[in-house]
Amino acid sequence: MNVSHKKSVIGVTLGDPAGIGPEIIIKAMTNHPLLKEANIIVFGDRVVLEQASDITGKHIDIVEISSLQDAHFKEPVLHLVPGRILREPVAFGLVDGLYGKAAYTYITMAIEWAMRGDIDGITTAPLQKEALRKGGCPYIDHTAILQAKTKSSVSTTLFWVDNLRIFFLTRHLPLKDVADAITADKVYQSILVCMGHLEQLGMDHPKLAVAALNPHGGEEGMMGEEEIREIRPAVEKAKKENIQVEGPIPADSVFYLANAGQYDAVLSLYHDQGHIAAKTLDFHRTVSLTMGLPFLRTSVDHGTAFNIAGKNMANEISMVEAIRMAIKYSKQIRSHSLLSRDGEK
Amino acid sequence: MNVSHKKSVIGVTLGDPAGIGPEIIIKAMTNHPLLKEANIIVFGDRVVLEQASDITGKHIDIVEISSLQDAHFKEPVLHLVPGRILREPVAFGLVDGLYGKAAYTYITMAIEWAMRGDIDGITTAPLQKEALRKGGCPYIDHTAILQAKTKSSVSTTLFWVDNLRIFFLTRHLPLKDVADAITADKVYQSILVCMGHLEQLGMDHPKLAVAALNPHGGEEGMMGEEEIREIRPAVEKAKKENIQVEGPIPADSVFYLANAGQYDAVLSLYHDQGHIAAKTLDFHRTVSLTMGLPFLRTSVDHGTAFNIAGKNMANEISMVEAIRMAIKYSKQIRSHSLLSRDGEK
Repeated sequence: MNVSHKKSVIGVTLGDPAGIGPEIIIKAMTNHPLLKEANIIVFGDRVVLEQASDITGKHIDIVEISSLQDAHFKEPVLHLVPGRILREPVAFGLVDGLYGKAAYTYITMAIEWAMRGDIDGITTAPLQKEALRKGGCPYIDHTAILQAKTKSSVSTTLFWVDNLRIFFLTRHLPLKDVADAITADKVYQSILVCMGHLEQLGMDHPKLAVAALNPHGGEEGMMGEEEIREIRPAVEKAKKENIQVEGPIPADSVFYLANAGQYDAVLSLYHDQGHIAAKTLDFHRTVSLTMGLPFLRTSVDHGTAFNIAGKNMANEISMVEAIRMAIKYSKQIRSHSLLSRDGEK
Repeated sequence: MNVSHKKSVIGVTLGDPAGIGPEIIIKAMTNHPLLKEANIIVFGDRVVLEQASDITGKHIDIVEISSLQDAHFKEPVLHLVPGRILREPVAFGLVDGLYGKAAYTYITMAIEWAMRGDIDGITTAPLQKEALRKGGCPYIDHTAILQAKTKSSVSTTLFWVDNLRIFFLTRHLPLKDVADAITADKVYQSILVCMGHLEQLGMDHPKLAVAALNPHGGEEGMMGEEEIREIRPAVEKAKKENIQVEGPIPADSVFYLANAGQYDAVLSLYHDQGHIAAKTLDFHRTVSLTMGLPFLRTSVDHGTAFNIAGKNMANEISMVEAIRMAIKYSKQIRSHSLLSRDGEK
């Protein structure tokens, strides 16, 4: 593991080159002092970055490197590890297997660098699932790629905006299937996982809130029984083990209370419960963290936005926030991960 | 109908006297220039208001009136229509039939004044349902009382915070029953009702967004079919009739977009969908409007808060916002209502 750099070394992947990834990365690097805040290495292709420079009117010198030793971070340049997939400018908004192959190559390289310890963490721009599939990638999304390539059996998504941190018990389920998916055992296990991740993030004695499922928290069973039957028993069990957790707390209060500082994080029970809270609060500043891997991965919380790609319309703020989150927490997540692996020996 | 006052005349009811209603009303009247912004008449009992003055340390002269003619709004006093139920200070946080009877009396009087046209609209402090029942009120909540006493078959709740207005397709349902409750016909009918209410609020050519039910709006059926089967057909039908409506729009974007000005209102499909958006955005400034009555009723979006009642801890901002909303829109809701009733003749 390379620990010679005091600053964090963050890998940034371009994502699908036909989306807004390249242009928001160029804007992030040129409109914000990120290159001073950390040592940043982009994984992509030169032609794509140059095209993004043209589109945004933001110029920056690009220096290709093939190993960390080649990098000279004191110079005001963007270090690029070339994927060597694309040689022509991209056609924005096009679902193309070649672009999927490129995106898959970039993230694969970044993971290899992170697993070697050459970078501390990774920030990703969005992928396009269909292009990925056409390009021969056997995984459906970033999470699947990251889990497979790092041999991690699970990972956990954490949303972060302002002072609000949100974990999810379930995510990509139809709303009608959510209630049945909530069991006391699953809630209890998830509480343990969330607490572990909050400690990894450096929080002493973190305090977690579990959201309720039904309006007004079910009003003692009058509007749903999951609180009584599943959620409350799980919370009580955890409390008996001296875990600082409260709930179920009505979902229209819990996110406000957490953002006000009453809880360090909320365990949201379904996708939109947490997503509505975070993105209504601050759409552009919501960042997603993937925990439970050997390193930290952060990402923007939006898609490829093919409809506006290449038009210099995309807002880079989410990318800036995602990179800053990686800068702030990557070293500590990595050392925790190494510690826990040492502990297993 | 009395139209001699240029300023709006707003009735404010104390709600359950053992809750935070009286103290937030006293704070609202003394910490904010509401008595200059409108002609305000409180429906309650003197002893309760005096007790609230003591608790908050905020003094204001109280003048009892029995008809609008008795009121002298230019004087810096609080006009009170006495319920004549309570003669002793209240025991805060106590569920008591006498308090329920008092609360029911206050709202009943206010409705009578509004139906006569002596007040333009009503702002209510919270009730306690069990006290109401013990006190002999045959209705379970404010909405039921208002509908019965005004002979309105339905009414519609509208949440309002910042620039965000939210209607609800369903409300007090267990989450597991929400998906089945969403039918194309119901969505279509609700779109028509929402558009009517937006016009009553003075909006020309309002634009409505319908929220999606499932994560990412169902992703073309991969995560739920309600968007394809029920919501989209309803929106398309309305569009064909030149109604300005869009949807289904993923729920984690739609509230942000509406608050940013892209839509005048959102039709939320279930309780927490809209509640999480409004209350995470600004917990204290969320106001509830009851539309579809012969007059406008606004209310705070919180309960009696028995745990902090009588302790001068309650925040009056939601009450201030609710009264201001009534000041702003009561006259126009009333004239719309009178027009539509004339039209029926």
